[in-house]
Amino acid sequence: MRLDEAEARRRFASARVARLATVDEHGQPHLVPITFAMRDNVIVTAVDHKPKRSANLKRLRNIAQNPRVSLLVDHYADDWTQLWWARADGTAHLTDHAPDAIALLCAKYPQYTHTPPTGPIIHTIVTAWSGWQFQTD
Amino acid sequence: MRLDEAEARRRFASARVARLATVDEHGQPHLVPITFAMRDNVIVTAVDHKPKRSANLKRLRNIAQNPRVSLLVDHYADDWTQLWWARADGTAHLTDHAPDAIALLCAKYPQYTHTPPTGPIIHTIVTAWSGWQFQTD
Repeated sequence: MRLDEAEARRRFASARVARLATVDEHGQPHLVPITFAMRDNVIVTAVDHKPKRSANLKRLRNIAQNPRVSLLVDHYADDWTQLWWARADGTAHLTDHAPDAIALLCAKYPQYTHTPPTGPIIHTIVTAWSGWQFQTD
Repeated sequence: MRLDEAEARRRFASARVARLATVDEHGQPHLVPITFAMRDNVIVTAVDHKPKRSANLKRLRNIAQNPRVSLLVDHYADDWTQLWWARADGTAHLTDHAPDAIALLCAKYPQYTHTPPTGPIIHTIVTAWSGWQFQTD
């Protein structure tokens, strides 16, 4: 059963982890799990605390040349009547200075309190929310 | 800390759910959660039990024109020292008749026992295993 946009967005927002898909110049998709925070229809995520290495991360190179991204939250259970997922498709851009985004991330994840992220922030403007849950007849 | 290929593959195989990324003709990635089974370096997944609808699924249209896919398994915990993920990048193809793949899926998921998947099977030949876990110093 398809979820409506509002419900897909609500479920997405409730999650602690999502997966970010980007695409490279050869059309090869790339996937990583991410922590994220949301404000309105913008999803923000940070890279880790190793600035020298993170500056060259594949996800950042991909977004720099192709801003189309997809992000997924899903719930798995061996009881398949409990399955659901929510997806955000959109356009991403990178910023090196985003104190608002870092504040959102720190507010959601106490783990960031002592070591807030310092690398680039990926902002995704969501253009489509979609989702699904098991159809209970 | 990077995982070696064997460890990434082992962790991937241990999971009940993965996420499949495909790419459409505009370079837009598409993400869905999947159940899967593995044999050697091949990952198989089925679409659901609604053949008429599933024949036109976005993931199938994408693979038919661009076989490059990425599949991700991840473990999230609020204790970030427990984080890890494992990824399979590869090339996918579709088959309508794949009794071996259906048998693998039914062996892994008892949920399929009474209603084995009937839709197309996606076979992914994995060309690269990668993974990461939190570095414990």
